[in-house]
Amino acid sequence: MSEEKKKKKIAIIVSKGTLDMAYPPLILATAAVSMDMEAILFFTMWGLNLIKKGGAEQATLPTHVGVSAEAMNELIKKAGVLTVSEFIKMALDMGVKMYPCEQAMKLMGIKKEDLIEGVEKPIGAATFLDMALESDIVLFI
Amino acid sequence: MSEEKKKKKIAIIVSKGTLDMAYPPLILATAAVSMDMEAILFFTMWGLNLIKKGGAEQATLPTHVGVSAEAMNELIKKAGVLTVSEFIKMALDMGVKMYPCEQAMKLMGIKKEDLIEGVEKPIGAATFLDMALESDIVLFI
Amino acid sequence: MSEEKKKKKIAIIVSKGTLDMAYPPLILATAAVSMDMEAILFFTMWGLNLIKKGGAEQATLPTHVGVSAEAMNELIKKAGVLTVSEFIKMALDMGVKMYPCEQAMKLMGIKKEDLIEGVEKPIGAATFLDMALESDIVLFI
Repeated sequence: MSEEKKKKKIAIIVSKGTLDMAYPPLILATAAVSMDMEAILFFTMWGLNLIKKGGAEQATLPTHVGVSAEAMNELIKKAGVLTVSEFIKMALDMGVKMYPCEQAMKLMGIKKEDLIEGVEKPIGAATFLDMALESDIVLFI
Repeated sequence: MSEEKKKKKIAIIVSKGTLDMAYPPLILATAAVSMDMEAILFFTMWGLNLIKKGGAEQATLPTHVGVSAEAMNELIKKAGVLTVSEFIKMALDMGVKMYPCEQAMKLMGIKKEDLIEGVEKPIGAATFLDMALESDIVLFI
Repeated sequence: MSEEKKKKKIAIIVSKGTLDMAYPPLILATAAVSMDMEAILFFTMWGLNLIKKGGAEQATLPTHVGVSAEAMNELIKKAGVLTVSEFIKMALDMGVKMYPCEQAMKLMGIKKEDLIEGVEKPIGAATFLDMALESDIVLFI
């Protein structure tokens, strides 16, 4: 494939499990695939909670933001925005690739069967770095 | 313009509204323009509070950092560092471009007239990604 | 040196001092040097606490993650993972370069003699940006 035809890529490390920080990676990744880019999400630390079965539904907010999770869920509903779990499902359907972090799964005692359907096989930091080196935008969220 | 003459660019997503996380994007963006780079700040989520009229003055600190906002403001004053709102004004004067995130404004019920003077028109995630693809450094703060 | 022989580089801004956010930069930087990349960590804000003498041992967790620092230290021990201070020492031994942020040291009243052995001389944001412009992956953690 020629250089010109290669798709642009974005790779995002998803390290937070809170409601407010769940949206940015999903918004960026789905916007990217809509622009015909490739998008990779690498879930590590608390981010893993978002792809655990039933985990996205339990996402809360840090108290210091001064808004309760209930109030934010209300805003989300009012604005007609998808819930986090609906958004994850849509992102998977759109072709966003989601990789769980192998080391963090071990640390937090999370097993492959605890994760939602559609995510890729767990990978380590080195494999992620290889993907990141081939990406045009790399973010840690 | 020839490849050699093109300015280097930094694009930063500003997602936090706390006192401690308000400084890093401002320091990096102003350092960048001082080095004759272009600097773009994309304000989303709680970051929008920093460019709301009167918002930067109310920035606090998460409790877990173990320092009160008052104590940090004291440190900032003692060190002769600008306040967040002074810093934002200086950054705008220096040519840092500040873009509010359209979707986050809608979600949080923020209107264009609520924002300080000098910021650009709101843009969406896709427009930001286009800018990020042309940048040499892209960060999520 | 020819283009092909130049080592790939990763540059990470370490701005958090909590237990959960201390690991990601260390894991990524050591994975990178294992892959024959160069790795630079730039410690600023609360991140400076990790390279203060005795600081890494005191790293705690934000309450909103819903896990106590004690419980996480237990998980870390159980999983046979290094403590943060052991990990920092190993990273230095492996050749990860650690730079303290000059401005943040001044703001927080931290002196060079307060820092652990093995870290580089403090640098400013502009010097870091120069390093970042030569890096293949740049992250803010």
